Amino acid sequence: MFMSFPGIGARQARRFVYFLLNADGDFLDAFTAALREARTRMRRCGDCQRYFETNGAETPLLCDGCRNPHTDRGVLMIVEKDADVGVVERSGQYHGSYFVLHDIIPPAEPDKKIGVPVLSLLQQKIRRANEAGILKEIIIALSANPQGDLATMELVKTLGSIGKNGNFKISILGRGLSTGTELEYSDEDTLKHALENRK
Amino acid sequence: MFMSFPGIGARQARRFVYFLLNADGDFLDAFTAALREARTRMRRCGDCQRYFETNGAETPLLCDGCRNPHTDRGVLMIVEKDADVGVVERSGQYHGSYFVLHDIIPPAEPDKKIGVPVLSLLQQKIRRANEAGILKEIIIALSANPQGDLATMELVKTLGSIGKNGNFKISILGRGLSTGTELEYSDEDTLKHALENRK
Amino acid sequence: MFMSFPGIGARQARRFVYFLLNADGDFLDAFTAALREARTRMRRCGDCQRYFETNGAETPLLCDGCRNPHTDRGVLMIVEKDADVGVVERSGQYHGSYFVLHDIIPPAEPDKKIGVPVLSLLQQKIRRANEAGILKEIIIALSANPQGDLATMELVKTLGSIGKNGNFKISILGRGLSTGTELEYSDEDTLKHALENRK
Amino acid sequence: MFMSFPGIGARQARRFVYFLLNADGDFLDAFTAALREARTRMRRCGDCQRYFETNGAETPLLCDGCRNPHTDRGVLMIVEKDADVGVVERSGQYHGSYFVLHDIIPPAEPDKKIGVPVLSLLQQKIRRANEAGILKEIIIALSANPQGDLATMELVKTLGSIGKNGNFKISILGRGLSTGTELEYSDEDTLKHALENRK
Repeated sequence: MFMSFPGIGARQARRFVYFLLNADGDFLDAFTAALREARTRMRRCGDCQRYFETNGAETPLLCDGCRNPHTDRGVLMIVEKDADVGVVERSGQYHGSYFVLHDIIPPAEPDKKIGVPVLSLLQQKIRRANEAGILKEIIIALSANPQGDLATMELVKTLGSIGKNGNFKISILGRGLSTGTELEYSDEDTLKHALENRK
Repeated sequence: MFMSFPGIGARQARRFVYFLLNADGDFLDAFTAALREARTRMRRCGDCQRYFETNGAETPLLCDGCRNPHTDRGVLMIVEKDADVGVVERSGQYHGSYFVLHDIIPPAEPDKKIGVPVLSLLQQKIRRANEAGILKEIIIALSANPQGDLATMELVKTLGSIGKNGNFKISILGRGLSTGTELEYSDEDTLKHALENRK
Repeated sequence: MFMSFPGIGARQARRFVYFLLNADGDFLDAFTAALREARTRMRRCGDCQRYFETNGAETPLLCDGCRNPHTDRGVLMIVEKDADVGVVERSGQYHGSYFVLHDIIPPAEPDKKIGVPVLSLLQQKIRRANEAGILKEIIIALSANPQGDLATMELVKTLGSIGKNGNFKISILGRGLSTGTELEYSDEDTLKHALENRK
Repeated sequence: MFMSFPGIGARQARRFVYFLLNADGDFLDAFTAALREARTRMRRCGDCQRYFETNGAETPLLCDGCRNPHTDRGVLMIVEKDADVGVVERSGQYHGSYFVLHDIIPPAEPDKKIGVPVLSLLQQKIRRANEAGILKEIIIALSANPQGDLATMELVKTLGSIGKNGNFKISILGRGLSTGTELEYSDEDTLKHALENRK
């Protein structure tokens, strides 16, 4: 079953199994207990959907970011996964709120693209913020690959219909030469974006 | 002397020497003759400075692109080297004219940055085009690395002083996520540009 | 805890955790059940110590190889891990019996080298085979790296003292140029072995 | 013509040409002069065929190694190219004499294998040494790849017929696990040699 883990092939899956077979008898107990505990302790934030660690009885429903009064609620960045939030936060370039989609469907199943439950949560959140008049901008921050582009197009269409009667604009992360790219080795699509987005 | 060639270290230089030592006696003659001929036959275009092949007596002073009446003379793209012109042309996204700098000085000699002779050729060309009222935009298309950024800044300053009394604007290739980049693995500087240049 | 898995760093461990957090509720149950079942079902062979799959009640104590009457019991190959047995078997070059050490200690703990329990199992097995007069050769087949070399030296010494009163010889896998190696790029130690082992 | 250099593709060949076009006018002169001089100054040793630097008038016909009285003339190592001599010498494991074949023909032209002129030089050298009764061993030290194996087989056959009436043996570099190889990742052919050459 390790082969269904991200990035794990047959050979490494086999190594994991032998590792667990050879491990101390208590390790497996501790390991499965830790997995269960992580699953119990980690909870999706009721607002931005990112995972956060709860601790015991009086557990909040929202993560630290969503309860932070300094978070700029006028901007909402939509990302694919928790790790993306981490990268953006470490860059120190963004101080708004987030929404984590979690399940962008690979291009192989193009009819689904974004999971229905999470999409309707996103729509509700945006409708509420729009009606409250606090939302000024949605930044769609998905990866610059076919899967991300497809999901971005779907989001622009779906969220745009909410925005029609609203006050927010929808923006997409800038495309062009990423830092370190030499012109000579840049691909055609990147060059096209770099030319279109010159400024 | 092969070690002064781009991308060639000691080991490969040695392999080249043994290759030439082992080569047929006539090969070395043919090789050095070809080098001399290339140097005679290839000429920098009097206008855009890219190399082009001349053929015999009635040699033109300008390359094919600069003599082509369909080239859009309203836009001028400044690149570092001939190979960059090739990449942009193959992308089919640009139909204007070019200027090849050839010698961007590495950051190790930051006081020089762009070779003086070529810079004064560029300034003359822009002044003439500006006075003729045909130049609408200069696109600085250097690589997205420290050396390219430094030279870009210098060009913006130098050419901007010509543009003050003129009608052209200066633009720089768009920076952001290059095609294929996953958000999770993008560096901080790229992320910063992608956020600034969102649209 | 995924970080204690072989070859897994912090980033991939985090990806695994998010993968399990996002996985269907039943997946975790099925996963931990599968881990437990593997641990119950897989058993070390009482003779060669490799893992084999048992099935239910009348479980044999020995693996298929050790029960196979065609296995040549005159030769015993000592390997580090189950995967090595697989590689040797697929090569079709060996038809003798095996012994799997499982725990060669990394060079950082040089005083332990080979786990004591498994080493005493190996000694018992060899003593029995030696007394029965069936053992003709022991092939020590560990990896050609410092850790493997250290353990090989220890085995030669330990098993050699049994062999003194016996009829078996101890051999080590041949060292030299591995297939595909160019002389120019071979390291000094390999070259030394290739010269010593010329034939 | 740079594309006929070892390991140079179209893109790098183009970079070399632009490099030379952009180079100072004197560089090309100095470069071709250096090539010619190398060709004049470097000479194949009349005995071992490796290249060595001659200097002016009273040029010796033999390289330093072949004139060195401490070289063990009882052993002759046959290698493919000068770089291989360098690697073996740096290993400090061999003190005999060499013979450099220079032109092993790639497998694509299997009917030629080793260049005829160099092979007949080798045969003469061995016949002489054999008749003088000083040659005890020939070590064929070619790369462990199809091309090297093919040439080794041809040499064993050709030189063996001289050896029949002689006193020397022909040996081949040992094959097996090269230093650093893990058993689990070794290929079948290497494993086969490692088993055959166990000791």
